[in-house]
Amino acid sequence: MLNLIIAEAALETMPDEIIRHPSVTNDARRTGNEPATLLLDRSIHHAAMVRLGDQFKRGRPDLVHLTLLNATSTPLYQDGLAKVYIHTRNDVVLEFRERTRPPKSYSRFRDLMRKSLREMPESGLIKVYELSVGALLKNIGPDLVVGLSIQGGSSSYEELAAQLSAKRSPAVLVGGFPRGHFTPETTGSFDRVVRVYKRSLDAHVVVARLIYEVEKHPRV
Amino acid sequence: MLNLIIAEAALETMPDEIIRHPSVTNDARRTGNEPATLLLDRSIHHAAMVRLGDQFKRGRPDLVHLTLLNATSTPLYQDGLAKVYIHTRNDVVLEFRERTRPPKSYSRFRDLMRKSLREMPESGLIKVYELSVGALLKNIGPDLVVGLSIQGGSSSYEELAAQLSAKRSPAVLVGGFPRGHFTPETTGSFDRVVRVYKRSLDAHVVVARLIYEVEKHPRV
Repeated sequence: MLNLIIAEAALETMPDEIIRHPSVTNDARRTGNEPATLLLDRSIHHAAMVRLGDQFKRGRPDLVHLTLLNATSTPLYQDGLAKVYIHTRNDVVLEFRERTRPPKSYSRFRDLMRKSLREMPESGLIKVYELSVGALLKNIGPDLVVGLSIQGGSSSYEELAAQLSAKRSPAVLVGGFPRGHFTPETTGSFDRVVRVYKRSLDAHVVVARLIYEVEKHPRV
Repeated sequence: MLNLIIAEAALETMPDEIIRHPSVTNDARRTGNEPATLLLDRSIHHAAMVRLGDQFKRGRPDLVHLTLLNATSTPLYQDGLAKVYIHTRNDVVLEFRERTRPPKSYSRFRDLMRKSLREMPESGLIKVYELSVGALLKNIGPDLVVGLSIQGGSSSYEELAAQLSAKRSPAVLVGGFPRGHFTPETTGSFDRVVRVYKRSLDAHVVVARLIYEVEKHPRV
């Protein structure tokens, strides 16, 4: 079983600091929601986000959605041979039950994320709980932890897929944010850090390619 | 240059037959738009769509977006070695200038598509014109035309990529719709029809994998 963790994901409900900004209150009024329950989204709340610390790593639920779909639409996932977790930058984990298909429509995904982050369900198709990357990995108990980062050592997808496929329950972490790097805390939990391409690539592209190469190996 | 055509795409503005249905008029009021300019979207207009012919192939701009992004986020496309066209089921072609990056945010993509279909720009980053698949292929002048379909002959991504890479300007057509098959008219323009997997797969998965394999070949 391959464990894929979309880590430090740019997915969060509205932070308190900007809850009264016009771009947020207008969005809340227009959509009939409480401001605090909205997902932070740069395409809507850009003007408010300039006040936020670490703003360039935040507010991109669209990228998280895209990366998630590129994992869950694959034969590997649909055959129950991959498990997917979203770990948010606020240390909230969304654990998808094996073979669960998240919505392809962005608005349905957004509503599902808002509901999940609000209700924190302890069972069902998506379980939600607070946990750091380190503690999540302790729960999963992987026999190899690989972080994908432009700062890592060079490897091809094929080489990496061969190493992962030789393990019983490896974990792969991909950044769920648009720019920047993993925190030192996250990096500290990796056994290896690997760079699969010479330039920075969108997480969804890396996930699609790596899963495809993993599928080429017969599973134990 | 690889020419990728997302064909018979489930992307269209609101068809006349359902323009007065409550799910459409409510959507128009809520978003402050004319009903006729909305994109048909099953996740919103489901109740209205039961009246439409061929309904199961229509109203999925989310799938078109996902497939487009899985092409345009790749090194092949970003290096100017792939060109992408969306051909809609109404024979409208959206031609993306090489290296153009479409928006990752679905709402921005939707607004861009609405604007493009309304204004039919003849130049710029996206050119829009009316053309059938056959006439579009005549314009492109490919030296090989491959359609991807579960009804085709079996091939691996590697084999197909090798064949495409041996050509100067091949065209690959992938269905931009959620279910069903290409029309006979579209199928009639293929040199070959190829099935890359034993089960039906989402177009975005096939596109991601095929482009990745094409990248492994040195370009002429």
